[in-house]
Amino acid sequence: MSYLDDISITKLKGMNRNELEKLAKEIRLFLIDKVTRTGGHLASNLGTVELTLALHYVFDSPYDKLLFDVGHQSYTHKILTGRKDGFDNLRQYGGISGFPRPDESEHDIFSMGHASNAISVAAGMAKIRDLREQDYSIVAVIGDGALSGGMAMEAINDAGYSKNKIIVVLNDNEMSIAKNVGAMAGFLGKMRTIKTYTAFKRSISNIIIRIPLIGRYLKETISRMKNRIKYLLLPTHFIEEMGFTYIGILDGHDIDSLIDSLKDAKNSEVSVLLHIKTVKGCGCEMAEKFPEDFHGVSSNHFSREKGAKPSNGKIFVNKLIEMARADSKICAITAAMPHGTELIHFEEEFPERFMDVGIAEQHAVTLAAGIACGGGKPYFGVYSTFLQRAYDQIFHDVCLQNLPVTLVIDRAGLVGNDGETHHGVFDLSYLRPLPGMTIMAPATGKELEEMLELSHDMKGPCAIRYSKVNFDLDYDMPTAFGKWKVLREIKPVTIVAVGNMVKKAIAVSDALKESYGIELGVVNACFVKPMDDEMIEKLSVCQHIFTIEDNVVKGGFGSGLLEAFAKINSKTMVSMYGVPDRFITHGNVDELMKEIGLDTQGIKNRILDELEIKHDEA
Amino acid sequence: MSYLDDISITKLKGMNRNELEKLAKEIRLFLIDKVTRTGGHLASNLGTVELTLALHYVFDSPYDKLLFDVGHQSYTHKILTGRKDGFDNLRQYGGISGFPRPDESEHDIFSMGHASNAISVAAGMAKIRDLREQDYSIVAVIGDGALSGGMAMEAINDAGYSKNKIIVVLNDNEMSIAKNVGAMAGFLGKMRTIKTYTAFKRSISNIIIRIPLIGRYLKETISRMKNRIKYLLLPTHFIEEMGFTYIGILDGHDIDSLIDSLKDAKNSEVSVLLHIKTVKGCGCEMAEKFPEDFHGVSSNHFSREKGAKPSNGKIFVNKLIEMARADSKICAITAAMPHGTELIHFEEEFPERFMDVGIAEQHAVTLAAGIACGGGKPYFGVYSTFLQRAYDQIFHDVCLQNLPVTLVIDRAGLVGNDGETHHGVFDLSYLRPLPGMTIMAPATGKELEEMLELSHDMKGPCAIRYSKVNFDLDYDMPTAFGKWKVLREIKPVTIVAVGNMVKKAIAVSDALKESYGIELGVVNACFVKPMDDEMIEKLSVCQHIFTIEDNVVKGGFGSGLLEAFAKINSKTMVSMYGVPDRFITHGNVDELMKEIGLDTQGIKNRILDELEIKHDEA
Repeated sequence: MSYLDDISITKLKGMNRNELEKLAKEIRLFLIDKVTRTGGHLASNLGTVELTLALHYVFDSPYDKLLFDVGHQSYTHKILTGRKDGFDNLRQYGGISGFPRPDESEHDIFSMGHASNAISVAAGMAKIRDLREQDYSIVAVIGDGALSGGMAMEAINDAGYSKNKIIVVLNDNEMSIAKNVGAMAGFLGKMRTIKTYTAFKRSISNIIIRIPLIGRYLKETISRMKNRIKYLLLPTHFIEEMGFTYIGILDGHDIDSLIDSLKDAKNSEVSVLLHIKTVKGCGCEMAEKFPEDFHGVSSNHFSREKGAKPSNGKIFVNKLIEMARADSKICAITAAMPHGTELIHFEEEFPERFMDVGIAEQHAVTLAAGIACGGGKPYFGVYSTFLQRAYDQIFHDVCLQNLPVTLVIDRAGLVGNDGETHHGVFDLSYLRPLPGMTIMAPATGKELEEMLELSHDMKGPCAIRYSKVNFDLDYDMPTAFGKWKVLREIKPVTIVAVGNMVKKAIAVSDALKESYGIELGVVNACFVKPMDDEMIEKLSVCQHIFTIEDNVVKGGFGSGLLEAFAKINSKTMVSMYGVPDRFITHGNVDELMKEIGLDTQGIKNRILDELEIKHDEA
Repeated sequence: MSYLDDISITKLKGMNRNELEKLAKEIRLFLIDKVTRTGGHLASNLGTVELTLALHYVFDSPYDKLLFDVGHQSYTHKILTGRKDGFDNLRQYGGISGFPRPDESEHDIFSMGHASNAISVAAGMAKIRDLREQDYSIVAVIGDGALSGGMAMEAINDAGYSKNKIIVVLNDNEMSIAKNVGAMAGFLGKMRTIKTYTAFKRSISNIIIRIPLIGRYLKETISRMKNRIKYLLLPTHFIEEMGFTYIGILDGHDIDSLIDSLKDAKNSEVSVLLHIKTVKGCGCEMAEKFPEDFHGVSSNHFSREKGAKPSNGKIFVNKLIEMARADSKICAITAAMPHGTELIHFEEEFPERFMDVGIAEQHAVTLAAGIACGGGKPYFGVYSTFLQRAYDQIFHDVCLQNLPVTLVIDRAGLVGNDGETHHGVFDLSYLRPLPGMTIMAPATGKELEEMLELSHDMKGPCAIRYSKVNFDLDYDMPTAFGKWKVLREIKPVTIVAVGNMVKKAIAVSDALKESYGIELGVVNACFVKPMDDEMIEKLSVCQHIFTIEDNVVKGGFGSGLLEAFAKINSKTMVSMYGVPDRFITHGNVDELMKEIGLDTQGIKNRILDELEIKHDEA
C-alpha cells in the first residue's frame, strides 16, 4: 500500500512516525523516478525529504510560513501540497516550476531562486507579523552553501537582535564534518578535523564523479560547499551571541528528532537556529540501496544532453587554458559554479590560479579587481542572473578603476527550465550604462575565442556574454575591436542581431529571399559597447532596421542603437525585437522563444507584418 | 617648530616616537582647521591619525599597498604623501578628492568610496603578488561599520583560508565596548556588557548631538555602528578559525604599540587581523582639549548649510510620518543612514516601525520585501549609489514578487563633493529594465508628497528618486499615476525633463522666449516608468524634442523616450542631454553641471546651437 498516492498535509499530520518513514522512502523513489526523466535538482531534494515532512508535520502551512532558500530543494514540499501529479511536467513549459512560486500554490510564500535571501525575507515577515499582532511561525530553510553569500550574514547580523522571532533551519549538507562535531569541545580540535575532512572530501569527490550519469552533477553540488562562515556558526556560543537560540546538531534524516526539535523551536520565545546535518550524497546512498531503480534511468534527461557539441562554456575554458599556458598572469574565478562554467578544467591544470569563492559574487568581482590591480589578468566565469548580485562591484571596483577584469557571462538570454529567477535578460541593460565597460557578444565559437584574445590585450574591463544554447553557426571573418560584421549585404531593410540571435537573423533573411524574393541585410553587432560608429553611419540611411537580441528591449542593444541614431539624426525606422517587459516563465528555450516571438518563424512573421507583406501564419 | 610643515614619508620614518606624537597632534589641529572650512569627513579622520602614522612608519608605500576601506578616513594618508597643500581645496572642483584616487597619487592604490570592499581587493592583490613571486605587504584598513556589509564577510570567509597573506586592520571605532573587552573571558559576560553599552551609547548620542555645528554629523557616524558581526570576530579563537592570526585589542591612539604590532603583522607568515580601538568621538576630545580652536570654526561649511529650505529628505520624512500616523502598516528602513535620509525623525515617533540594518543594502531591500510579503508597507530610504549594492534583490525579491516596496532614492544625479564614487547617475538605467517597477521623479516638494501618497496605494514596487539639491520650484498641478505634466504648452520644439532638471527646462524656455522670441514647450516627465503614452503620442509629431535628465544618457529616460517613439514610428528629432558616458569628478553640483553642459546656460546654448540660432557664448 502506498502512502504517497493520496498524500496531503492533513493525511501527513495523522501518520505515526513509522508511517512517516515509509512515506519518506516512497518520496525518494518518486523523486528519483521523476527527476531523472524531467531533469531538475535531485541531490538537494533527496537530502531534505525528512526535513520537509517534519516541517509540515509540526507547522500549519500556509498559516505558518515556510521559506526555502534557493528553493530548488522544495520538491517534497510541492508533493505534500497537492502538486505530486505535476511532476511529470516539472520545469516544462506550462508545468510546475522547479522553484517555489506563489502563483502556483498558497503554500509557496515567495519565489526563491537566488541564494541567501531567505533569512532577510523571514525577518521582514516577522517584523510586520508582530506589528500586526499576528502569531504565525516563520521558518527559513537555508543550506550551508548559501551562508557564504554575504547577504545571509547581513541578515543574521540584523535579525538575531530584533525581537521578532524567526526560525532558521541550517541545512548543513556538506558531505562531512565528522559526525561527532556536535560533541567536540575544543576549537583547535575541530580545526584539525576540518583539515582531515578536506582531504577526505577530495577523495570522495573523485569517487562521486565516476558515478554514471549524475556523478558530475553531484560533484558540482558538493564542491559548492566551500564555506567557512559555517564554522563560525557551529559553536552554540556564537550563534547565541547573535541573538539566536541554537539547537543542534541533529541528524536531518531522523524524523523523530526533527519533529521534536521543530516543536521546541516553535515554542521558543526567541529566534532559533536549528542546525541539521543531511546527507547530500543521499543519491549515492540510494544508488547503493536501490541499484535497480537507480540504474533504470538511462533514457533520462542527463544522458540526452550528452554527446552534443561542446558547450559554449567548454569553448571558453579550452581557450582560456590555452591562453593561460602562455601567460602566467591569467587567473580564473568562479562563485560556486566550477562545473556549470566548465572552469573545473582550468582548475585541473592551474589549481594555483583558480579560485572558487563560494556563493559570493560580490567578493568574486572585487577579488578579480584586486588581481587586476596587482597586475594579473582575471577572468570571472559567471551566469548572467547571478552577476546581478555584484552590480555595484562592477561599477565601483572594476569600471571606476578601469581595471582589466573580464566578466565571462554564461547563461545570458533565456535559460529555459529554471525559469524567471534565472533568465539572464538584463545584462546588456545594466552593463551598458557603466563607463569604460566593453561588451562583446559572440555568435560563433570562433568569435568567442577571438573575443577572449581581445580581452587579454585590453587595458580596461570587458564582458563577453553568451547563451546556454550551443553555438551553431560558423563563418570565417576575423573579430576586431568595436567592429560589427556584415553577414548579408546591407540592404534598405536590414537586421542587426546580437549573439545567438545572429543565426536566426540569417535564417530569416535566407527564408525571405527564398520565399518572397526580398533581400534583407544581416549585421552581427558583436560589440554592444562600444558600437561600430562607421557601420551605424551606413545603417542610418536604411529604410528599416530590425534589431534582435535576447535581452530585454528596455535599455538593451536596440535602445543603444536608437541612441546612436538619434545622435546623428537618422530617420531610419527601427523595430526592436527582444524580451518584453514582463517576467518569462520556465520551459525549454525554444518554447519560450516562441512565446515571445523570438523564434525564427516568429521573427519572420513579425518582419513580414511590418513590411506589410502577406504571408501564411505558419 | 612644526613637524607638519615639510612632512614626508621619509621624514616620518626618521622621527622618534615622541616626535610622532607631536606630529599627530599637529595633524589633528590641521584637520580640524581645514575640514571645518571645506567640509568633509572629520570624525573618522581624527580617529585614524596615529594608525596612519604607524602604517607609514612600518610599511613602505607605495611598494607596500595600503588600502583604506570606504576611504574617507584617508586624510592623514594624503597629508603624509605630499598632498597637505591640497587641503585648502579638499573635495572642491579641481582640488583633491575626499577619497583615495589612483590618479591623484601613486600611494592611492584603489578608488575607495563604497564600504566593505577592501578585504576583497587585498585578497586579489595578494593572490597575484604571490603568483608573480613578489613580496610586498598588503594592508586593508576596515572600520567595524563596514563589517556589517555582507561583502566583507564573503571576503573574510574566502581570504582567511587562502595562503596568500594579507593584513587586515579592523578599526573599531564604536564609542564603547567597555575598555576591558580584550580581557574579558566569558561570552555571556560580554553579552551583558553589550547590553549596558547600548544604554550607554544612547545617552552619549544625546549628548553628542547637542555639540554645536558638528554634533549631528558625529552622531550619524556613531549610530551607523549597529554591527553585531564584529562580536563574532572579537574572540581570537574565531578569527583564527577563519585562518587569520589575531592581534588585539590595541589602543589605536598609542603609536608605540601600533608600530610594534604592525611590525609583528608584517613579519607574520600568515594573514593577520589586527584589531584596534580608536575613539570616534575624538572630535569631542579635541573640543575639550582645544576649545579655542574648536570653537573658532563658526563660519564653516557646516553652518553655511543651515537655515536653508527643508531638504528633500525632510519633505519625504515629514510626509511619511504623516502617512504612518494614519496607517500602522507603514515601516521605514535605512542602511546606516538615519540622518542622511532624515529617517531619524521617523524613528523618534515610530521606533518599533523603524529599522537601521547597518551597511547592508542587500538585506535592507529583502527585509522590505519580507515586510511587504507579510502585508506591510515598507519604505526604504537610500542613496542612489548605494542602492546599486542591492540590484539583484530589487530584481529577485521585489520586482519578481511584485511586492509593494517603495524605494525612496535620495542623492540621485550628481552629488557634488563626494565625487565619482557617489554620484547617483545610473538608477534610471538600471531600474527601467526591471518588469513591474514604477519610477517616479518629483520636480517639486509637493510632487514628492503626492508620489508618496500614490506609492501607498500601489500593489507593486516603485521608486521615487530625487536629488540632493533642494526643490526650488512650485506649481499647482495634481500628480496622477503615469501622467506627465505640461508646464509650457507643447510646441514644435519641446523640452521633456526629469526631476530637478524641470526647473532648468522652464528657465531655458522662458529665457529663449524673452531673448529670442522662440517658444519652447516644457513637459515634466515625472513618471519615468510607465511613460505617459498619450503624451508621447502628442510629442511624436513635434519637430524636435530635447530630453534633459541628470542620469547617464545610456539607457536613461531619453533612451526610454526613443524606445517609445520607435514603437509608434515617430520621425521626431530627439536630442538627449544627460550625464555623459564617463565618470564625473568631485566639486560642487553647479560646477559639475556646468562641466557636462547641464547648467541652465549650457542647456540654452546647446539648444540654440542645435536650432542653428546665433547666440553669444555666455
